[in-house]
Amino acid sequence: MSRKKITVVCPSFTEENKKRMAEAADNFGYDIIFYDEDEAAKQDASESEIVVGSSLRLLRAAPQAKWYCGTFAGVDSIIDYVPEGMILTNASGAYGVTISEYIVMILLELLRRRPEYNRIVEEKKWIRNLPIRSLCDSSVLILGTGDIGKYTAKRLRGFETARIIGVNRSGRNPDGLFDEIVSGDRQESILPEADIVILCMPDTAETRNMLSEKRIGMLKQGAYIVNVGRGSAIDQKALIKALNEGRIAGAGLDVFETEPVPQDDPVWNTKNLIMTPHISGNMSLGYTVERIVDLFCSNLENYCLGKKMTNVVDRKRGY
Amino acid sequence: MSRKKITVVCPSFTEENKKRMAEAADNFGYDIIFYDEDEAAKQDASESEIVVGSSLRLLRAAPQAKWYCGTFAGVDSIIDYVPEGMILTNASGAYGVTISEYIVMILLELLRRRPEYNRIVEEKKWIRNLPIRSLCDSSVLILGTGDIGKYTAKRLRGFETARIIGVNRSGRNPDGLFDEIVSGDRQESILPEADIVILCMPDTAETRNMLSEKRIGMLKQGAYIVNVGRGSAIDQKALIKALNEGRIAGAGLDVFETEPVPQDDPVWNTKNLIMTPHISGNMSLGYTVERIVDLFCSNLENYCLGKKMTNVVDRKRGY
Repeated sequence: MSRKKITVVCPSFTEENKKRMAEAADNFGYDIIFYDEDEAAKQDASESEIVVGSSLRLLRAAPQAKWYCGTFAGVDSIIDYVPEGMILTNASGAYGVTISEYIVMILLELLRRRPEYNRIVEEKKWIRNLPIRSLCDSSVLILGTGDIGKYTAKRLRGFETARIIGVNRSGRNPDGLFDEIVSGDRQESILPEADIVILCMPDTAETRNMLSEKRIGMLKQGAYIVNVGRGSAIDQKALIKALNEGRIAGAGLDVFETEPVPQDDPVWNTKNLIMTPHISGNMSLGYTVERIVDLFCSNLENYCLGKKMTNVVDRKRGY
Repeated sequence: MSRKKITVVCPSFTEENKKRMAEAADNFGYDIIFYDEDEAAKQDASESEIVVGSSLRLLRAAPQAKWYCGTFAGVDSIIDYVPEGMILTNASGAYGVTISEYIVMILLELLRRRPEYNRIVEEKKWIRNLPIRSLCDSSVLILGTGDIGKYTAKRLRGFETARIIGVNRSGRNPDGLFDEIVSGDRQESILPEADIVILCMPDTAETRNMLSEKRIGMLKQGAYIVNVGRGSAIDQKALIKALNEGRIAGAGLDVFETEPVPQDDPVWNTKNLIMTPHISGNMSLGYTVERIVDLFCSNLENYCLGKKMTNVVDRKRGY
């Protein structure tokens, strides 16, 4: 009788990553097959007990699977299609390091007017007096206190920020990393106090349009916004307007309402906006991929030994 | 009899800054006069006991002054011309916050390939897979453990760097902020171990050409270099060569051998080099100017009451 099968679709795994995963699989009596893209993986996926990947296409090819091991933190694109009884895990915990570094970088770029200085240098000019701002003594509001929010709070603390306030559903302060936690239903009270607002939430019914036009209007004149979660959390049109009018001093967006951003989208030409093509948390950092492999190996053991698995997505919450 | 006089040349002081300085001056029986540039200040400077500013021109206009209160941290451009008996103070302590933020920003830009992603966004492309690197687990070497080095070590600690090693003259570990201190004469032993080298030293006989061609050659393949101190510390020609050949993965330079950088300087077109026009520590951040005012006020009291002044430049050391 042939052995049980695991199909993996991920072009970012190195040979060493694959070796570690293969050893873990073999340990528990599985064959494991690696693919770089979904199309080639279809046949094996349809015969696998476990699939590892990120796409809806892979999920659809493997309705019989018992465990879909997601390699991404946000599973919003597949969660509604996961058959009842199939375990869905995400890779929360793998992206905190890389996304928090992105957030600090983009914030400093906004505060220190990097786009303007880049232009000055491109034109070989020697202009030095643009007024800048600092993280020091700034009040920071972090919407979402999961893995990414926690890592970001840790990093920002070192810059002697004035206050780091977290917003979440539970009102709990994870690891005591925040100076204050405000529960989601009370967040409007805190919006006018923030110099900086960071969004790092999954896409769920509750987070959609969280930073609505009304709430953007409640922010401090000259506030900064960074979004690394999902584009659906911000009223993008209202944000573009607030930026172009100078009410919001700057924004850093890695995620958008529509991705890839359409060529004729007005977001491309917005004042004081720094855009990146959804790269804050992808797998281009080796460290991230290592953590995804760690998560797979430990959860495979949990799964096989009937222990409690980590990172299991709660369908009701959506993450 | 007319009162004693203080002449101040600095366009960055706000009305509030000036008010604080004027109150302090008045307290000790001084008239204080503010100018935005040296030329207009000459007459008053020549009649002042104390001058506050940054230029050699101001110093030359006031050979009779008893205290030259420098508003910059690096006094290399004036130190050799300060008459015997005149007290020279610098503004070390005022620039740590802003320069350390610059360093973290530029490092993350280098590690995360910001210039390439900027081009991708400019061309409205959606490319997402450039391999990046992280501060996490990196070994960082900081040449210079003064104000700027210390603030930088504090900020970098929050990113879970592997090791932060400081290089200084004394071999002492200021505030225990570094994992290890290597004295200047032993620094070559540590160069091959660093992923990141940060230079934040004043210009002195000892720091000139500290990162020589030979030492650049001793660095790890793929290392990163950031210089916010003085351009004289690096063999710029050798660094350009190492960058263009890809031996050094990237560099962030805010200071250069010649400033402003000449239009035909090859440094403008160097591979993987991020340049800025000596802005990491100027007075465009209000916080910095506040600290300079603090320093002036407390040192004026020290000076008038015959107490020990802070930030007095040691002519032999050069800072």
